[in-house]
Amino acid sequence: MAVHSSNIIQDQIDQLLQWLSGFGKTEDGGVTRLLYDESWQQAQEAVKGKMGAMGLEARYDTVGNVFGRFEGTEKTDKVVMAGSHIDSVVNGGIYDGAYGVAAAMLAVERLKQAYGRPKQSIEVVSFCEEEGSRFPVTFWGSGHITGRLAEGESETLKDTDGISIGQAMRACEFEAPASLPLKREDIDSFIELHVEQGGTLEKTNASVGVVSDIVGQRRYHITVEGESNHAGTTPMPERKDAVVLSSELITNITAMARRKDESMVATIGKMEITPNVPNVIASKVVFSLDVRHHSKALLEEFEQELENLYAVQAEQCSMNVSSNCWMEVEPVPMSRAVYETMHKAAESLQIPSQLMISGAGHDAQVMGSYYPTALLFVPSEAGVSHSPKEYTKSSDLEQGVKVLEETLFRLAY
Amino acid sequence: MAVHSSNIIQDQIDQLLQWLSGFGKTEDGGVTRLLYDESWQQAQEAVKGKMGAMGLEARYDTVGNVFGRFEGTEKTDKVVMAGSHIDSVVNGGIYDGAYGVAAAMLAVERLKQAYGRPKQSIEVVSFCEEEGSRFPVTFWGSGHITGRLAEGESETLKDTDGISIGQAMRACEFEAPASLPLKREDIDSFIELHVEQGGTLEKTNASVGVVSDIVGQRRYHITVEGESNHAGTTPMPERKDAVVLSSELITNITAMARRKDESMVATIGKMEITPNVPNVIASKVVFSLDVRHHSKALLEEFEQELENLYAVQAEQCSMNVSSNCWMEVEPVPMSRAVYETMHKAAESLQIPSQLMISGAGHDAQVMGSYYPTALLFVPSEAGVSHSPKEYTKSSDLEQGVKVLEETLFRLAY
Repeated sequence: MAVHSSNIIQDQIDQLLQWLSGFGKTEDGGVTRLLYDESWQQAQEAVKGKMGAMGLEARYDTVGNVFGRFEGTEKTDKVVMAGSHIDSVVNGGIYDGAYGVAAAMLAVERLKQAYGRPKQSIEVVSFCEEEGSRFPVTFWGSGHITGRLAEGESETLKDTDGISIGQAMRACEFEAPASLPLKREDIDSFIELHVEQGGTLEKTNASVGVVSDIVGQRRYHITVEGESNHAGTTPMPERKDAVVLSSELITNITAMARRKDESMVATIGKMEITPNVPNVIASKVVFSLDVRHHSKALLEEFEQELENLYAVQAEQCSMNVSSNCWMEVEPVPMSRAVYETMHKAAESLQIPSQLMISGAGHDAQVMGSYYPTALLFVPSEAGVSHSPKEYTKSSDLEQGVKVLEETLFRLAY
Repeated sequence: MAVHSSNIIQDQIDQLLQWLSGFGKTEDGGVTRLLYDESWQQAQEAVKGKMGAMGLEARYDTVGNVFGRFEGTEKTDKVVMAGSHIDSVVNGGIYDGAYGVAAAMLAVERLKQAYGRPKQSIEVVSFCEEEGSRFPVTFWGSGHITGRLAEGESETLKDTDGISIGQAMRACEFEAPASLPLKREDIDSFIELHVEQGGTLEKTNASVGVVSDIVGQRRYHITVEGESNHAGTTPMPERKDAVVLSSELITNITAMARRKDESMVATIGKMEITPNVPNVIASKVVFSLDVRHHSKALLEEFEQELENLYAVQAEQCSMNVSSNCWMEVEPVPMSRAVYETMHKAAESLQIPSQLMISGAGHDAQVMGSYYPTALLFVPSEAGVSHSPKEYTKSSDLEQGVKVLEETLFRLAY
């Protein structure tokens, strides 16, 4: 391959991101693009236009994903796909999702200029939705092309104004849910480039992170039931204090997670106390628990240990502890063949890379359950994400584009 | 003294309580009488009327406390006072406060019938307010006659509709705040009879509890400041999780309280988590801490130990913990002379009594800081209070009336 001029790529990717951030720009420099809203429509339409201008064959699918196809000379029945999502959280950063779309466009444009048509067809994808910011569903875009969405879902899932996804789709002239197509069978591999949204790369000084696994997640509601009583007249040994037992459980749960495995994380982010009054002993606490790891076996083992913990501690206090797992997402390994290609691409460019686990979900998680998939990270300054303060240095953005370009070259040319 | 007929007293006290519960009765059998509201006015006016019908000299003071005076034959410059408060919490029980007022009326009526006028003047008091249910102030009644209320307070303290105490007073034809009198100097002793609102007497099978001390209370807001971060991408050792540190603190605080003294209580009843989202590490937790004990020295010692705990644990986690004591009520010892008279009264009646600490505040707490004061408890079924389910057996109500009557006899006849 040709030697890249650093400044050109940095300028190009910066320009593309600034251009995209103009759609749905917020007062403090972030973006708000919610599925099927006006800013989203403008952004997705602009991406489609830009793909067309690049000479790609650009089209919407029925739900509003945009694909820009660069037809291969030899193998056209299966495509190499690269991209990410165009939607954002409310007042999110300008890199999350958008970087993956912009980088894929830029990489393909550069390959086209340098080498012309590939042997295998390439598609750049701008998924319509990943964040779950407007409707109570995530991965609406990748879920659609993998055929994993249930029919009729689009009529039952509603935003806070009571508008269903189906209604919102039709208002944008996309199709009604009954027409949802089955899984796309023509995808050979999928590559996503994304900002890390964590602090691992920043600490290790690697420019890019090659993801081997995306963690599985289990989310629980833990309910601790005690007995409400007067804070002044109930002696300590006679209390059934739901806050005290919850506190002991939280201390033990997080200590157990740390002991279990160094890459296991357990988070209690939400607590609801009843009655939540300073001078009344709490009768009930419901707290959330979010556990993540890339080994399903370890998640199952940990769940069993948690159940034992609840049983033992509840009995000690003559109280009741119950646990409800309301969300279970399986860990998804990335394709070893694809991510090793990616790793070699980085090596050949002398870009320091690191093999890592992704603790967050991405389109690559859904795609990875159906197609050979790889996920590449660039550093996030201070790990900040879902915020206008989200930032990645131009030099890091450039390294990501270069590794993606080289990987696509190795896969499709 | 004459031998009492049990059934008569039980019937009389039951009737008085039923009659009082008619003012502000709620659907589920409780009462709501808030300072200066209509039900309160009707109840206080009815009490005044009943006192008059009993032959007592009944009057309001400027803020709406009602006194029924039974003039002594010898010592009339200082009175023996007995009673409690007429107001309630929202949908409270029919015993809290009302029992002390009704029992004092009944005891004095029975003494009058049996022995005529006392040597020393007796006053039955129905304090206008103790609960703090309408305005952000407690002990408005006893606070008034002890002269501890600040002038002007009645214009700044407002209910949730924005009505000041002063406005509400004037609407009931009580006087404006500038006319608040100084402390009443003519009170020789004060005796309050109250339901326990706890489970101590029920467990020990004593019919009455003679209170030696009312606990002091310190209430704190503890603020734990960590760092908000992604629940998936932040490794456990790098977290500054405000929920985890708060849980450790709560476990330690309650364990420390149990070790400190068997009658110390520490309650964390309220927690506010920021941002309180399942998949975000909490950046901040503010929790309440209510500590009670009857020794001021022990409360001070414990506060110092808490400060040390916060400092050590905050440093270990590189986080910040700060504590704000927003309420400090000193412990109040009851008058040994008066409560020993009360204890002997119970003994002479062969009523099993128990010396105990009050973990809750009462009018006796305010009065006890200014006048020799005693507080007598009768059992509360299952310790339930501030609820329509509050209940005390008639036979226990009777024992309380008998001890109060005998005590007043010993003090004033």
